Formats: sequence, C-alpha cells, structure tokens
Amino acid sequence: MSEAQANQFSEETGPSKSELKKRAKEAEKEKKKAERLAKEAEEQKARAANEVDVSSGKYGPLPLNQSKERSGRKRISITSLSPNQEGETVLFRARVNTSRAQGSKMVFLNLRQRTESVQALVVVTPEKISKQMVKWVGGLADESIILVEGSVQLPKEEVKSATVGNVEILISQIHLEAAPQIRLPFSIEDASRPESELDKEDTQFTRVLLDTRLDNRIIDLRTQTNQAVFKLQSAVTDLFASFLRSEGFTEIHSPKLQGAATESGASVFKVGYFKGDAFLAQSPQLHKQMCIAADFERVFEIGPVFRAEDSNTHRHLTEFIGLDLEMAFQEHYHEVMDLIDGMLKSIFKGLTENYSREIAAVGKQFPADPFKWREETLKLTFKEAVDLLVEDGVERETLDDINTTNEKRLGRIIRDKYDTDYFIIDKFPMALRPFYTMPDPEDPTLSNSYDFFMRGEEILSGAQRIHEPNLLIEKMQEKGIDPASMQAYVDAFRLGCPPHAGGGIDMC
Amino acid sequence: MSEAQANQFSEETGPSKSELKKRAKEAEKEKKKAERLAKEAEEQKARAANEVDVSSGKYGPLPLNQSKERSGRKRISITSLSPNQEGETVLFRARVNTSRAQGSKMVFLNLRQRTESVQALVVVTPEKISKQMVKWVGGLADESIILVEGSVQLPKEEVKSATVGNVEILISQIHLEAAPQIRLPFSIEDASRPESELDKEDTQFTRVLLDTRLDNRIIDLRTQTNQAVFKLQSAVTDLFASFLRSEGFTEIHSPKLQGAATESGASVFKVGYFKGDAFLAQSPQLHKQMCIAADFERVFEIGPVFRAEDSNTHRHLTEFIGLDLEMAFQEHYHEVMDLIDGMLKSIFKGLTENYSREIAAVGKQFPADPFKWREETLKLTFKEAVDLLVEDGVERETLDDINTTNEKRLGRIIRDKYDTDYFIIDKFPMALRPFYTMPDPEDPTLSNSYDFFMRGEEILSGAQRIHEPNLLIEKMQEKGIDPASMQAYVDAFRLGCPPHAGGGIDMC
Repeated sequence: MSEAQANQFSEETGPSKSELKKRAKEAEKEKKKAERLAKEAEEQKARAANEVDVSSGKYGPLPLNQSKERSGRKRISITSLSPNQEGETVLFRARVNTSRAQGSKMVFLNLRQRTESVQALVVVTPEKISKQMVKWVGGLADESIILVEGSVQLPKEEVKSATVGNVEILISQIHLEAAPQIRLPFSIEDASRPESELDKEDTQFTRVLLDTRLDNRIIDLRTQTNQAVFKLQSAVTDLFASFLRSEGFTEIHSPKLQGAATESGASVFKVGYFKGDAFLAQSPQLHKQMCIAADFERVFEIGPVFRAEDSNTHRHLTEFIGLDLEMAFQEHYHEVMDLIDGMLKSIFKGLTENYSREIAAVGKQFPADPFKWREETLKLTFKEAVDLLVEDGVERETLDDINTTNEKRLGRIIRDKYDTDYFIIDKFPMALRPFYTMPDPEDPTLSNSYDFFMRGEEILSGAQRIHEPNLLIEKMQEKGIDPASMQAYVDAFRLGCPPHAGGGIDMC
Repeated sequence: MSEAQANQFSEETGPSKSELKKRAKEAEKEKKKAERLAKEAEEQKARAANEVDVSSGKYGPLPLNQSKERSGRKRISITSLSPNQEGETVLFRARVNTSRAQGSKMVFLNLRQRTESVQALVVVTPEKISKQMVKWVGGLADESIILVEGSVQLPKEEVKSATVGNVEILISQIHLEAAPQIRLPFSIEDASRPESELDKEDTQFTRVLLDTRLDNRIIDLRTQTNQAVFKLQSAVTDLFASFLRSEGFTEIHSPKLQGAATESGASVFKVGYFKGDAFLAQSPQLHKQMCIAADFERVFEIGPVFRAEDSNTHRHLTEFIGLDLEMAFQEHYHEVMDLIDGMLKSIFKGLTENYSREIAAVGKQFPADPFKWREETLKLTFKEAVDLLVEDGVERETLDDINTTNEKRLGRIIRDKYDTDYFIIDKFPMALRPFYTMPDPEDPTLSNSYDFFMRGEEILSGAQRIHEPNLLIEKMQEKGIDPASMQAYVDAFRLGCPPHAGGGIDMC
C-alpha cells in the first residue's frame, strides 16, 4: 500500500479537534434523527399492524448479530447465479449499491458483493408483498448491508448496470444487517466513474478528488475498481510465490529492525529502541545474500521496505511491499535472468487466464490496451537500447544513463518495432549500479546486471552479486563505503559463498 | 526471525574497534598464509609437472565466476541420487561437510547440500587419479564449496553418516569454487549435536553456546537442523496462505508505519518521520477489521509486527512474523472458528505428509514425540477447561485466568484423557479479552472468543469482534480508551460493517 493509504488507515491522521467536535454534533444530530425515524417507523408499524401487513416478518432490521443461532442455511455469492436457476429461491448478503423506486409499487435495487453486482426488485403483490414493505425497501440507504431472499428470474433484457446481467432477483424477504450511521462523503458510483465521462464538456457528474478518497478510504476501497485492484495485487504475490516455490525457493522473513543504517545511510528511518536506536530495513538485499552464504540456495521474500525519501512521485513511497528473490547459480547469471523472465511471464499468464473479470473491472474505470508480450522475450544490451534511442533522434551524449523520459520513449520504440510491452535490458554500465554488482568478465566498465521493463517503466532490477570478499571490499572502497560499517555482510562472504544473482520488484 | 537473529543479521552489532583491528590483522596473516600456500602450490605444481600429473586439469581452484561461460551441463541434487544410477557419471556442487584421509591414497568426503548429505571418495588410481590430486583433496578445508564429477557406486554397507546412505560417489574430477577465508568459530558437526550426547558424563564433545551461534549466525544456519527449520517455516506460510486462498481470502499488506500508537500505547516503537513521528504497527488487528468494513469479506496477512517489550522470554520478541486472518461470517462466529480449525489441520497434514524428511532432521538434534491430533477437534469451553484443572487438583480460586503453568498442565491432562496435542478453548471471560471482543449473547461476562492450543501452549487467539460502533465505543470507554484516539477505526464501523471474526498466529 502507498503511504497515502497508510495514513488513511491510521488513527492519527484523523481530523482536528474542531472537526471532531463538529462530527460529534453531527453524530448527535444523526442519532436524534435516527430515534425520530425509529419512532415514526414504530408508529407506522402500529398503524400498519391495524391494516394487517401481509409482509410482517419478511422485512425490517435484524437485531445485532452476537452469534445466537446457526441454521447453516446456504447463502450464495452473486457470481454463482446463472439463468438455468430460473425459479430457484436463493439467499444472500449484499450491499445496496443504488436503489430506484418506480412509483409506489416497485423498487429496483442494484446489489453489490465486492467486484460483482446483480439487479433485484421488490413489487407490491396481493397477499404476499405489502405496500409497507416496498416503502421500507425504498427507504434503505445506499451502502446498507442487507440479507435478501428471492427467486431467480430472467430479465426482459440484459441488465447493463450489473456485472451479472443475465438474471435478476425477485425479492420475497429482505432484512437490514447494518446501515451507514453517517452521511457518505461521496457515492460509490461517483468514485467509480472513468475519467472520460468526467472530462466531457457537458458532464453532470462530480469528480471525487484524490484527497477526498484518501480521507475516506473505507468507502473508496468499496468501488468495484479497487476491489479488483486488491484481488489482482493478492494474485500477483500468489503467482510470484507459487512459481518460485515450484523452482525450489524457500520463503524468508528478514528483520525490519536493524542495528545500523545500511546500503545508503541518507534515506533510512531511525527507531527509538529502548535505550538505543534501531533502523528500518531499506531492502532485504544484504540479508538475502547472507542467506545464500548460509546455504539457503534459493530464497524469496514478500515484505515491507522503508525509504525515508521525502519526495512526491508515483515511484517514491516511504513504505511499500518488496518482492525479492536471490539464488545461487551454477555457471552463469543468465540462469537467474531466465528464471525471473519465466516467473514474470507466469504472472502475466496467470492474471490473464484467471483474473480476466478483475482486469475488465479495472479497465472500466481506467481503460488500457491489452498488455502484450512475446513467447521469446526480447533481450537487449544497454548499448543496443541506447542505439535504438539514438536512431530515434535522442542525442547520444545525453545517454550515459536512460532517464525516465527516455525509458518511456524506448518503450514506445520497442512496442512499434517488436510488438511487445515487455523486454529486458542487460549489461548496464558498472557506474550505474551498486557496489555489490559483479563486473562483466570482458569489459570492466560494464556489469552483469539487468532491468526488466513493462510499458516503458522499469519494474524489476537485478544483477549478479560479488561473492568474493576481497573484490567486494575493493568495490566498496571505490564507491566510498567503509567495509567496517558492513562487517557482518562482508564476513558472510569470508565464510565461502557460491556465485549468485537476484532481483527485486517494488509493489505499491 | 527473533530479535537475536535480527541483530546477528545486522551490521551494527558487529565487533568493537579493537576486535576489528584484531580481525584485520588476522585477515592480513591469513592473506599472507594464502599467498605462501599458493606459491608452494605453484612450485609443487611445477615439480609435479615434471613428474607428469595424470590428474592435471581434473582438480584445483576455479577462477572467480564472473559468468564467462554457460555449458548448460546438468548438475544434480544429492536427494535425486538412487542405487539404480550405479555407474552413471554425475556432476554437482556441494559443501565439504567433513573429510577424512585413509593413508595417503584415499580421502573420504561427506558432502552437504542443505538438509542432505552423501559420501564421496577419491582414490589414487594408475593413469587416472594422481597422488597429488588425492593430497589436494585431503587438504580441502571444511565448508569449502566444491564442484564434483564422479560415478555413482553402491557402498559396501549403508553410509550412516550421510542422509543419502545407499549410494556413494567415486570422484573423477573436483574443483574448488569458494573456500572459507577465516577460521570457522565452530564446526557444523558440533553445532548439530543433540543435547543428549552433550549431557553424557563422559562426553568428548564441545557444546556450542547460543551466544556463539548467534554471533556466527551464517555458520549456525548451515546445520541440517536449521536448514530444515527454515524449510518448515516456509512450508507453514505456504500451507496457511494456500488454504485461505482456496477459501476465498485476499492477501493484504497493512501499513507498518502508522500515524498513532494504537491498541496498547505502552509497547509501541516510535519512528522519526521527517519533521514528525510515526509508530510501528503492533498488529494488523485494526486494519484487517477495517478491510472487512471496506467489503474485502475475507483477508489474511503475513508480515512483521513490532512490540516494544523489553522482556526476555521465548514468547516475547520485539519483532516477529504475524499470520493474521479476518472474515465476515454469515450467522455465527463458529463458522470462523471451524475454518481456522480446518486451516490448522491442513498445516499439520501438509507438514506430516510432505516434510517428513525435514521433521526427521530437526528430530535428530531435538527429539520429540510425534504430534497428535484428532479428526474431530476437541473443543472445550473456558469453564470446562477450568473444571478439568480443578479435578486435577488446582484451586478454583486461582483460575480467573489460566496462566502459562496451568496451560501446560491442561495440555498434559488433555493428552492423557483425550490422546491429542491439539484442542480449542472457547468462551473466555470478557474481562480477559480486548475491548473489541463481542460479548456472549446470553451471559455478558463471557465473550465470543477462542484460543487454539498445541502441546499446552496457546498458538492462536481470536474472537468475534464488535461491528456496531455504539457498542464498540461503550466497550472502549469501559476499558478506559478514548474513542477519539481511534477515530478512523470507529468510523469504519459507522459506515456499515458485517459481523466478523478472526485470529492471529505469532510465528518466530
């Protein structure tokens, strides 16, 4: 999760005292209103009772669930619904996404479960569904959690507003399990609109701003888009871990509290640790290499990394999830590069094959071309990548490194020329890589290092590491790092370590 | 990993300056020694060349691996070896675990890969294996990384000192890939000995003390016992996540940097966060519940949690890995308790069925009775557990809570009476549980909460949570917590939240 998310989840970034007072007042008001409504409902119920409510017991709020009973009656999920269930009675819990009354005799509900939705309706029916019941349903607030019993029926035409549009539910019973007790800051519908609709000149829709979203993260997370994003994020870690486990990797959890600031001292967070200080780990880099020296052979880690970088870009966060791997290789670091390539392609394949509904859900709000990759991955050397940019008109003198703008440009060139959104650049100049990178065996200005790119953005960076302590010390000194400041790390290689390489993905 | 492990991995807890100087001197000495040895080897080689070394090129150190070549020749792992490969030539990398010369014509090596080992031997053979080669092999230091080519042969009798004891390797080529450059603080063999051998009166073995192990963690991690422990730890997170994913859970990563000290302010670490402060998360408790309010339905998290508790027990660590889960239930929190029960049993089953070699490896150093559990898990209420202890002679007056000693006693009583090491206690008194625990529907002094036990130790604690904000506020106030200090958390329930329950395992 991003920092903004982190803040939203935490308690301190709550509102100011005056805001709290305001809210308390509002809550008081809401409470009084609720009491008044409850009283009215009671009176209405009494009146209705006199009129004999044929739906009595079929609707209304449920008492607080303290786990008093367990009938075990089956409850379904919306995705399981299909037209061949026509006439079947089903029971399920859902959110009221939106509701719409048609006159006083019919109410349409759009009911939501995570990324899925279905249409339900309640209709005044003699001897079965009372006017009172339909009115009560019409009064349900958006985002109420309801328990619905109804029969599956086929709509006259596909329901476009629902993800499961080939069936609808004719409600026979409906009860309220929980309702919002405060006014919603924005509607899920508004929060789910694509930019294209909002950018139209004559648009009647309100744009929900990022700050508002983050200040009300619980509501924002309920959009079908965000539900899909989190399902996809969960799928990525699953596919990453599954592939690596099948290749003999062991999952590790390296310590986040460390005794010293490592790698690059400037951007590390300091923690008060009893009478001393500790520091938050900036990456599992050193530990995963030390695990190789400790004979783990192949390791991966999924865990938080911390960077005290006070920047505001979509590529700089103070806390994010790192997907890291490191492995001993037998002969050549390309064994590792190839394994990482296979791992990424298995993620692409797994997402495309098993999460098409989630990808489509995100695409509704954020349209994107389908992601393209080739069976045989395109591999360029850094020099070849530079040549492509020069051919395209970039001055060679500016290309000691490939900056973000040129990365994007390279992505476009390669998409046009090779019809792929995914490629590898190998053999970066030694000057661009960290001290622990193994130099190329032929040209000491180059290194055994690689970056993986998606749509013109680096998504994974890695290299062969130096496993020989004397060469490591030499390279540390060249980069102005005191080997004594990383004694345990250097000592690990003094104990004998096999050649190894690895890489890391930064996931928000 | 434990704090001690964390420190071992980190750089700061390295040695003092004088120690550093001493080491530098030692390193210098070692270097000179290495140079002298190299020179001698060179001279010897020259002499040997005159003698015509029939093994020339078949042994010796390899140059630093900078990924110059990639033959793709297959390398095997020790576990794959079997007697029906008799006569086959195989190639593999391994550590020299131990070596033993038999006269000047034969050297036995015990070669190790993680949890496995095999015997190899090199024998002076006319026209094939020279005296010089055998001598060189005999001089290899323990923990050297070697590349071995040899033929599979059947030993006269099972090799007891190797885990793969029904074959041995007759070496034809052997090269050195990396060697320890400092003297080892202890041998892997010594570090792997069971207590029972060390406790013998006439023992000739040295006990490797915990401090020594932790000061030299890289070596200590190489024991077959520790390799197995980490494989098992990795298997546990895999089995935990796989089971939950198959039950529709989404993996989340809640923020570790938080804006406020939550849950229990006393034991939280403070982090310098630019111009302000942040705090390290003590558990994902609040966030995972907020995810339920955000409609995630079922979530789990595997990640570090931080406790600023300055205690030294095996149940108090400042950083450990939490395995957390939370789920909305339909009718009764026992749905969740049953799911957790199923999850734990799937872990027991997965470990027993697929990791018997690793369990056996740990058992060699730390013998233990096989873990017993029943198809139908034993479930007791807190009251029933107390009654069992009273029957066994514990005074009822002391049993407001069940302390660690009585937990162990209860474990023994239940093992004797029900033949199981695994059971659940349900319905703890409300007074023993946190503010967010849902009270029992009949008896407000009890709660909808449970603990899971293995061998008389609580391994997972959980409960139904309060999903109704007004009741939550009431319970916060009863426990002296200011609801305003946890505004975002309380607000999540004001937005409507389904009934839910969950639990957490603390893994070292």
